[in-house]
Amino acid sequence: MKFNVKSALSYNVNGPTTFIFNIHALNTSSQTVLEENLTIDPAINHDVFTAHDGRSKFMRLKIQEPCNFSMSYSAIVDMSYKIIDENNSENLVSVVELDSYIASFLYPSRYCQSDKLMKFSFKEFGHYATVYDRVLAITEWIYNNIEYTSGSTDSQTSAIDTITERVGVCRDFAHLGIALCRALSIPARYFTGYAYQLNPPDFHACFEAYIDGDWIIFDSTKLVAVNGLVKIANGRDAADSAVASIFGNAVGTSITVDCQVMDDNFQPFIYGGNQKAISFQ
Amino acid sequence: MKFNVKSALSYNVNGPTTFIFNIHALNTSSQTVLEENLTIDPAINHDVFTAHDGRSKFMRLKIQEPCNFSMSYSAIVDMSYKIIDENNSENLVSVVELDSYIASFLYPSRYCQSDKLMKFSFKEFGHYATVYDRVLAITEWIYNNIEYTSGSTDSQTSAIDTITERVGVCRDFAHLGIALCRALSIPARYFTGYAYQLNPPDFHACFEAYIDGDWIIFDSTKLVAVNGLVKIANGRDAADSAVASIFGNAVGTSITVDCQVMDDNFQPFIYGGNQKAISFQ
Amino acid sequence: MKFNVKSALSYNVNGPTTFIFNIHALNTSSQTVLEENLTIDPAINHDVFTAHDGRSKFMRLKIQEPCNFSMSYSAIVDMSYKIIDENNSENLVSVVELDSYIASFLYPSRYCQSDKLMKFSFKEFGHYATVYDRVLAITEWIYNNIEYTSGSTDSQTSAIDTITERVGVCRDFAHLGIALCRALSIPARYFTGYAYQLNPPDFHACFEAYIDGDWIIFDSTKLVAVNGLVKIANGRDAADSAVASIFGNAVGTSITVDCQVMDDNFQPFIYGGNQKAISFQ
Amino acid sequence: MKFNVKSALSYNVNGPTTFIFNIHALNTSSQTVLEENLTIDPAINHDVFTAHDGRSKFMRLKIQEPCNFSMSYSAIVDMSYKIIDENNSENLVSVVELDSYIASFLYPSRYCQSDKLMKFSFKEFGHYATVYDRVLAITEWIYNNIEYTSGSTDSQTSAIDTITERVGVCRDFAHLGIALCRALSIPARYFTGYAYQLNPPDFHACFEAYIDGDWIIFDSTKLVAVNGLVKIANGRDAADSAVASIFGNAVGTSITVDCQVMDDNFQPFIYGGNQKAISFQ
Repeated sequence: MKFNVKSALSYNVNGPTTFIFNIHALNTSSQTVLEENLTIDPAINHDVFTAHDGRSKFMRLKIQEPCNFSMSYSAIVDMSYKIIDENNSENLVSVVELDSYIASFLYPSRYCQSDKLMKFSFKEFGHYATVYDRVLAITEWIYNNIEYTSGSTDSQTSAIDTITERVGVCRDFAHLGIALCRALSIPARYFTGYAYQLNPPDFHACFEAYIDGDWIIFDSTKLVAVNGLVKIANGRDAADSAVASIFGNAVGTSITVDCQVMDDNFQPFIYGGNQKAISFQ
Repeated sequence: MKFNVKSALSYNVNGPTTFIFNIHALNTSSQTVLEENLTIDPAINHDVFTAHDGRSKFMRLKIQEPCNFSMSYSAIVDMSYKIIDENNSENLVSVVELDSYIASFLYPSRYCQSDKLMKFSFKEFGHYATVYDRVLAITEWIYNNIEYTSGSTDSQTSAIDTITERVGVCRDFAHLGIALCRALSIPARYFTGYAYQLNPPDFHACFEAYIDGDWIIFDSTKLVAVNGLVKIANGRDAADSAVASIFGNAVGTSITVDCQVMDDNFQPFIYGGNQKAISFQ
Repeated sequence: MKFNVKSALSYNVNGPTTFIFNIHALNTSSQTVLEENLTIDPAINHDVFTAHDGRSKFMRLKIQEPCNFSMSYSAIVDMSYKIIDENNSENLVSVVELDSYIASFLYPSRYCQSDKLMKFSFKEFGHYATVYDRVLAITEWIYNNIEYTSGSTDSQTSAIDTITERVGVCRDFAHLGIALCRALSIPARYFTGYAYQLNPPDFHACFEAYIDGDWIIFDSTKLVAVNGLVKIANGRDAADSAVASIFGNAVGTSITVDCQVMDDNFQPFIYGGNQKAISFQ
Repeated sequence: MKFNVKSALSYNVNGPTTFIFNIHALNTSSQTVLEENLTIDPAINHDVFTAHDGRSKFMRLKIQEPCNFSMSYSAIVDMSYKIIDENNSENLVSVVELDSYIASFLYPSRYCQSDKLMKFSFKEFGHYATVYDRVLAITEWIYNNIEYTSGSTDSQTSAIDTITERVGVCRDFAHLGIALCRALSIPARYFTGYAYQLNPPDFHACFEAYIDGDWIIFDSTKLVAVNGLVKIANGRDAADSAVASIFGNAVGTSITVDCQVMDDNFQPFIYGGNQKAISFQ
């Protein structure tokens, strides 16, 4: 299924500033970028490259003089995904067999202090029979216990704040999901992307848990269908997957995001039936 | 110069437990492991592998039955290093040119919340002329303002705790150094290793900052000479570079560490003269 | 019912030190100190006084020279209490009618950050019909969700830590109970005292909530019967109710505590029946 | 010297709400309220009372029905103060002699976690000869190291956040000053009031330290002259001294504050000369 994604960002640049943008749709085995367009104003040398771990595509540039800077990006992306169903064999992958890249998502990170949530996560979710059931229970728990409120948190808010204050946005929901998984020794990573029918339109964040050999996507906000997502990046948390990292002196002035399905028969995927979940490879 | 390093760890294992040990000397262009010996008791299948980023060598095993488990490791390692002197050209590498692996060390991590220390670090260290001078000033500041007290902190202590409470151990000194560097957009990574003449003998931690194309080592504890170090691992912080990560139910019972120079003329390297610093590549 | 309470504390004093001890049984309308004995070694001028709010009895002294200092205290205390039963009229006291002293226990304090727990407390406990039911539900929730583990926390641990890490001692259980009450606009204060049949013997902490005109006692540790308590002090939290506040340079070397009932027919009081609760006035 | 102070606050009340306002000028031995006027719209039963410790004058009311609520207050206040000069005898009051009310300001509180700042405060300020010099040094240090930025913090910001992030408003400056004093066993309390020539006009916060028998006022923002202040309240910190505590469902819509001197020859008092400081009794 094809998606048409767009984003546009503007900044007042007040002094020398390096930007690292993370807004390109990623090319993966389940996601093919068919067309892509990037416009930068003023026109400036920039660098587009894939991260060393292959999980982000960055655009980087440095502006020397004060100016109004804007960029817009659009892409047509063909999405596929693997359906995890009852017939997928349950090949449990224990910690001792995880490869080193995947094992790196077991550790606590800036916004996901899993080391502080071990007892809670084990008591609340440790009794479910399978890893899938545990992560599904985590997702439901967050949905039922954290209040989604726009503007309630900021860039320093972490999973510990969210589980205490019980309020947040998609980023906070994702961080808490990741932290609760890692606390149970389930590898979990941050997902940012474009999201169909997100209202109001914006970049979206959720998370992937590594279950029986697949990175399966979970979204405890329930704001969109997970098969309506187009991946921008995976990371440990928002610290290494921010839409824009700014080194210097610039202030954002506007942001617009759009994501449309180029097809008539979009069917939202529902978790928990015979077709249990989906994985973007 | 050759070093002979040893470590031995014992555990009471009370139930199924996966261990990931990070105690092997790393093979790098400046560090060659000449001989190496690993003993595990009881003898059990184990897996030794280098991390996907090449900056750690892990030993991993799973114990199913309760037992007393112990392991001992020894190695002879030939060390070299690059001396950074006045004649090293100052090829400043700006953020916009950093490669993706190095840029990943600009971001805050679990124990190094650089995003909260921007104003402090900029005010205290931002006025020094060169990146080297800034990191040296950070190192001195930590040495002068944080009290080194064994047992004063635990595995949850972070840079924010350390800058507030002004007390810690080598791990905390390293985390604070890393956080203050990253707050100034200087890439910085955690270093764990064996240390000659560390008293009492133990594993040691310090940090490396990326300056003009080299990862230069800094140790704000001043407990040992930096040219008496043998590297075990680099990481973002102690979250991904712990000596032992334990998934299951085991309690440590003993630890011994040793590091000897196999040569007569060890000269401790002093920072800040014409020969300014050293880098392990 | 009469209780015989004892405590003895010893310190190595290394330099000039002021101690403020808070170990005397309090005289209140429901608690009468019949006999009391205090021994200090070395004999030193000291000052015993009741706090300005009448809720603590302090013993204060200053030691100038290094020495081994010890004190022992014993008392016979006659306890009574008010039983809150079904026939107590439910005279709800709303915030707007609280007197100023009682209203002061609505505010967050050092270890009871109720301002951060509003959403959680309201969602979890706000639906109970009466204030008594809410506080009883808070008490049960803490008992069921926080693990009591000796030595798991320290003097900086606060309610936010406890609700996150889910482990603590009596002091932490009390702080969390207080914070959750205040988050629902229920005045709550810290209680320290001697406790009959506490095992191992120690000072104990729990909390009182202000319900319909009475300060009712709740103990979410369930380690002792609440009618086996002898009050030492009330306060906002452990910050102003510590057993010993030390200004100077002294290290504790031993502590012993004892509490015996001087009567044969002690019947532990059970909460939640027709005789719902008890209040020490 | 006479001051004319005014404040007006408006709220959208959406459901039953109890307000506790703390905006009345306090009557003390150095501050006499000559005239006072309070208007409430809609007219509603309300209660004006002095707190049990005499350090606040509250106005309390309960609104049952949704409405737009507004209140305005004005007063003429005659101020005097004690000048602390070189000839004031230095009657040091040690901790062991403090009365119980004053000693209560030695303890950490919600926003002033002095227990975490002991080493820092002792190292940075402990070497000054007198208590006055220590507090003056604390005041200067905050002024020089914390950036005053409107809107940079919120109602949960505490002294620990401020010393880490190095930014705040008057409330945060006061909390940090209090915490650093208490860390040195100097009693310190929060001060809220009206302030002449504060720009933009607003309520103001600073702190008082107890030195040689007097509560001396210090303001590390240096935004106003301390002899241009009219006291509203003293408290442990903003937790018990907020301008408005709201229990229910109401949203503030406007606030205006004014403070004028009714005299021609106002001379700002400068700290640190022969006339060292001033104290409102």
